Amino acid sequence: MDKVKVAVLGGSGYTAVELIKLLLRHPGAEIVAITSRQDEHIADLHPSLLGRIDVRCQPFDADALKAKGVQCAFGCLPHGTSMESIPPLLERDIRVVDLSADYRLRDAKVYQEWYKETHHDLKNLAHAVYGLPEVYGDAINGAKLVANPGCYPQTAILGLAPLVAHKLIERSGIVIDSKSGVSGGGRTPKLNFHFPECNESVSAYAVGTHRHTPEIEQALSDVAGAPVSVIFTPHLMPMDRGILSTIYATPTRAVTEPELTELYRSYYADKPFVRVRTAPPATKDTTGTNFLDVCVKVVRGKVLVLAAEDNLVRGASGVAVQNFNRLFGFDERAGLL
Amino acid sequence: MDKVKVAVLGGSGYTAVELIKLLLRHPGAEIVAITSRQDEHIADLHPSLLGRIDVRCQPFDADALKAKGVQCAFGCLPHGTSMESIPPLLERDIRVVDLSADYRLRDAKVYQEWYKETHHDLKNLAHAVYGLPEVYGDAINGAKLVANPGCYPQTAILGLAPLVAHKLIERSGIVIDSKSGVSGGGRTPKLNFHFPECNESVSAYAVGTHRHTPEIEQALSDVAGAPVSVIFTPHLMPMDRGILSTIYATPTRAVTEPELTELYRSYYADKPFVRVRTAPPATKDTTGTNFLDVCVKVVRGKVLVLAAEDNLVRGASGVAVQNFNRLFGFDERAGLL
Amino acid sequence: MDKVKVAVLGGSGYTAVELIKLLLRHPGAEIVAITSRQDEHIADLHPSLLGRIDVRCQPFDADALKAKGVQCAFGCLPHGTSMESIPPLLERDIRVVDLSADYRLRDAKVYQEWYKETHHDLKNLAHAVYGLPEVYGDAINGAKLVANPGCYPQTAILGLAPLVAHKLIERSGIVIDSKSGVSGGGRTPKLNFHFPECNESVSAYAVGTHRHTPEIEQALSDVAGAPVSVIFTPHLMPMDRGILSTIYATPTRAVTEPELTELYRSYYADKPFVRVRTAPPATKDTTGTNFLDVCVKVVRGKVLVLAAEDNLVRGASGVAVQNFNRLFGFDERAGLL
Amino acid sequence: MDKVKVAVLGGSGYTAVELIKLLLRHPGAEIVAITSRQDEHIADLHPSLLGRIDVRCQPFDADALKAKGVQCAFGCLPHGTSMESIPPLLERDIRVVDLSADYRLRDAKVYQEWYKETHHDLKNLAHAVYGLPEVYGDAINGAKLVANPGCYPQTAILGLAPLVAHKLIERSGIVIDSKSGVSGGGRTPKLNFHFPECNESVSAYAVGTHRHTPEIEQALSDVAGAPVSVIFTPHLMPMDRGILSTIYATPTRAVTEPELTELYRSYYADKPFVRVRTAPPATKDTTGTNFLDVCVKVVRGKVLVLAAEDNLVRGASGVAVQNFNRLFGFDERAGLL
Repeated sequence: MDKVKVAVLGGSGYTAVELIKLLLRHPGAEIVAITSRQDEHIADLHPSLLGRIDVRCQPFDADALKAKGVQCAFGCLPHGTSMESIPPLLERDIRVVDLSADYRLRDAKVYQEWYKETHHDLKNLAHAVYGLPEVYGDAINGAKLVANPGCYPQTAILGLAPLVAHKLIERSGIVIDSKSGVSGGGRTPKLNFHFPECNESVSAYAVGTHRHTPEIEQALSDVAGAPVSVIFTPHLMPMDRGILSTIYATPTRAVTEPELTELYRSYYADKPFVRVRTAPPATKDTTGTNFLDVCVKVVRGKVLVLAAEDNLVRGASGVAVQNFNRLFGFDERAGLL
Repeated sequence: MDKVKVAVLGGSGYTAVELIKLLLRHPGAEIVAITSRQDEHIADLHPSLLGRIDVRCQPFDADALKAKGVQCAFGCLPHGTSMESIPPLLERDIRVVDLSADYRLRDAKVYQEWYKETHHDLKNLAHAVYGLPEVYGDAINGAKLVANPGCYPQTAILGLAPLVAHKLIERSGIVIDSKSGVSGGGRTPKLNFHFPECNESVSAYAVGTHRHTPEIEQALSDVAGAPVSVIFTPHLMPMDRGILSTIYATPTRAVTEPELTELYRSYYADKPFVRVRTAPPATKDTTGTNFLDVCVKVVRGKVLVLAAEDNLVRGASGVAVQNFNRLFGFDERAGLL
Repeated sequence: MDKVKVAVLGGSGYTAVELIKLLLRHPGAEIVAITSRQDEHIADLHPSLLGRIDVRCQPFDADALKAKGVQCAFGCLPHGTSMESIPPLLERDIRVVDLSADYRLRDAKVYQEWYKETHHDLKNLAHAVYGLPEVYGDAINGAKLVANPGCYPQTAILGLAPLVAHKLIERSGIVIDSKSGVSGGGRTPKLNFHFPECNESVSAYAVGTHRHTPEIEQALSDVAGAPVSVIFTPHLMPMDRGILSTIYATPTRAVTEPELTELYRSYYADKPFVRVRTAPPATKDTTGTNFLDVCVKVVRGKVLVLAAEDNLVRGASGVAVQNFNRLFGFDERAGLL
Repeated sequence: MDKVKVAVLGGSGYTAVELIKLLLRHPGAEIVAITSRQDEHIADLHPSLLGRIDVRCQPFDADALKAKGVQCAFGCLPHGTSMESIPPLLERDIRVVDLSADYRLRDAKVYQEWYKETHHDLKNLAHAVYGLPEVYGDAINGAKLVANPGCYPQTAILGLAPLVAHKLIERSGIVIDSKSGVSGGGRTPKLNFHFPECNESVSAYAVGTHRHTPEIEQALSDVAGAPVSVIFTPHLMPMDRGILSTIYATPTRAVTEPELTELYRSYYADKPFVRVRTAPPATKDTTGTNFLDVCVKVVRGKVLVLAAEDNLVRGASGVAVQNFNRLFGFDERAGLL
């Protein structure tokens, strides 16, 4: 069988290099193009790719990508830029997995409120599918445009979905206290990501204002069939990668740990990348993998969920490949184990 | 004026070496003895002390300490051991600042429940004073035995005291999500503190069972004049030192950030080591100091408090010196700025 | 084609878990047994393996391994223990890739001198092949017993081989200043690998006495056809994995950087895992890969070589798979890209 | 006695904040001004200074500093800028400790060669004193302008001075392999200091071209009374602070470790900040202190020296205070223990 020809849009960042490494191992994908404003060999941008791939970055050009036979494009562009580049690809029947935030929020007003930018591709927004396979499953398979989910939201949504689905917790006042490695902040040098600033330190940021908040709420409301609201607090940790979310919710009835663990096991029984555990996961257990580890506890009448992942793999490029697998009929696990 | 002669009990750990460094800089203290089961020069146990102090460790012996003129002993012993060593010192009129947990919980039954050990010095437990100066103030000054507070509890208690004192939050269901550097786990090698295990990783531990829980509740209940209960979750961070507690509480009436910040400023107006800030603190801002930085936010109807400290200085040895200053009539800040 | 049935001896450490992950991805290997003194599921010893492999550790028993059809055993045992376990496997026609030091030094007296232990398997020592494929090449293919090379030695040997082979540097007084991540020290908790001891710190250790010294010299003397001697100084770095060796040698004639770079390119032309670079490599460029990056410079009349690798992959488990590929006729790169 | 009024020029970087902390503890110094292009309170630039100092940064203006009574200015400006700002201060009889490189190299041609900039303050260059107290001692006391030494050079110079002074090593071919924490690179965000780039990685940089090379050679040649040349290779380590230099030299006659250790002890007998040790120092032993730890070994006919320091204290701001103490007649250790 021929391999699917893929392109990576925006090759200079961390999600791009992670994605390229995953695709190089994928039995059914062939990277035929990488775009970037930097006209360089991709291994000059990322020395770790030396000797593994021989592709020179090219400026974005939908016709050129089509001419190369690209069947699927992975968007690793910043939000705002994504919705400029993606429409011409869709017009040319190139399917897209977009890792930016541009097509995640169904309501363009909510997008504008949180991203301070007007959405100007309502047409494609209307049919984009939120690419969290464990929740949106088969809807992804036939999509033209998949909005790959954010890193934090996956821990929150998968951490809470079984409880919300079974109406076991109150739908408001849910506290999501998340801890992330620095790679989540991207590859552009900034003072708060300067090594001597963030090393040996922990701090909260974007308190009450982080843009992943509405994304978490949209998906959980879908699962609940009713509005869910959360208090989400991200923290910066002195490590490269990994997210741990510690989630606190109020049960609607008396619950026990064994009962909830069983519920999670059942809910995720046929989901190969969610590992339900009884011991609190360390983010390191998931490093370099597409697994999301989840553990549920009952503490003094509250339900406490711990959800861990690698923010670059499961949180971005790994789940993008998982979505690609669904789009093109591969085993969901292809290239990811 | 003669310097106060002090001894450090249990010189081999991290709180001991931090304390020794602080005392060496203190204008009114003279270290005349350090005890340890290891019969070595203190600089052989801690090479950072080379050329700064010339004291050889000696086995614990209350009479020997008395003979050396020790007026104040700092206990850096493990819990359980402390309550063996401290009674003979008190009998010899040596005042004690105990950094262990043995005299922190007024109710010996609560001690037994959480520490799985019978308390066998009820006599001295009865008069011990909990050494959190910003809350217990002058009660410390005349004490014979000060129970130095735990590292986590200080962030929780000082982070919540103004709210609790003014009955602005509900007294149950308070969530305290704490992140700590590894030095908080002590100096004994263990797998979970082995560098390649805890580096580049974050995890929760002792979920629902951490021994600092009753200590936090005891102090906050004192402040409130009514029972307070908390859900406390500690996390291990890949860094040497620093604690950040992110605290979530439910207000009893509508509140605003400016109002609460003002309340905190007023509450801590004459407390030199609490810095009330409007931006979320990084633990690094407090590294090596006795400051505890606190910031209060209102997010979607919840009150959110961020409290940061250096777990070895403010969280242990620094506040021990602050207590020493009160015991012996020094300016509270002596040796700590 | 049937997969080769393999066993991992000594499953609890870091090289074992790395090896297991590589083998799980290998198209031609099937892990049928893992031995350990700990009678546990391998995923309980290494939570990162959860859901990826379902093997319970068993005590070492050569007959039991043979009965399971094991064709190749990977030894991840400590030195000294290896030479106990390996003879019975070889007797049963099980081929062995031994990651310990037991069969690396051809001269048992040298072994005794540096490892302070008598070698008691001289019979197998006599036919063991040192498993550095880029140097010992086809000799490995037919071996019954491969002595997998040490982590540091690979950087030193591959960093110097082209120079030594062409007699371009003096054979004595070569300085090898190596920097390693902490995982190189193994998984047993010790004070010097305790997080708050080695984090935020750099130090040299085993100055003039490290056991990899004779291993480096043996291989370089083979390449040179004459005795080579080195001064080797390892350093402990605050990171999980990665080795960088900075090597200083005295040229035997005037040399230039372009000439030497060309020489290295030519020497390693058909070696897929050595990447010759003109810019100094960062260890991070090699993390998680079997690549060894090398760069040669001329500074003030000295030749300076920089050689970087991942100590757990290239330095141990990756090269073990590379050797396995040679033993069983796979492409040298199988499972490693 | 009145305190000496001091100013800090260029308050936004790491050496400035470290210096300010040291000066705040100094019994004889009073910070009356801090200059910066950023018109902000110094605690807004460095939150760690909150509540410890109440000074607002002002633009550089020599007259304004004179009007405030400044007696000593500490220059924390970049090289090139320093030689603009310092002449007007000297004209106004303000003594200067300059932490930049502008006045370290006596030969303006050498400066031009390595810094690619013409030196345009030859007048003051002529009388500047290189501020390494252990070598240039009393010459510093009466200076108007002290060129504070570089971070790397101090480890190299003090590591080698006893050997060079006693003609015990050959004066050329000396290898200095140095490892530094990231704070040495300054506070301006750059890709190579971006956390996810330099964390978990080690690399050499400026191989053969680092500007500290001529500074090391100038001082060692002074000590030797004859030209000394070195091969100096700096490396970037994933830690905040600390430098370890591993130095390799060829002895001119047979030497032993005890003999050399004794020589070092004698050479540094009255130097309070050099600690001669027999075990290899860890940089962590010196963190936060003005100590420079040195250890000398003999390995296979080479002399090997290990020298460790905190690059921000001993390597910059601490030695600046040591120089200040000499300029103004304080005990050399004032404010530094």
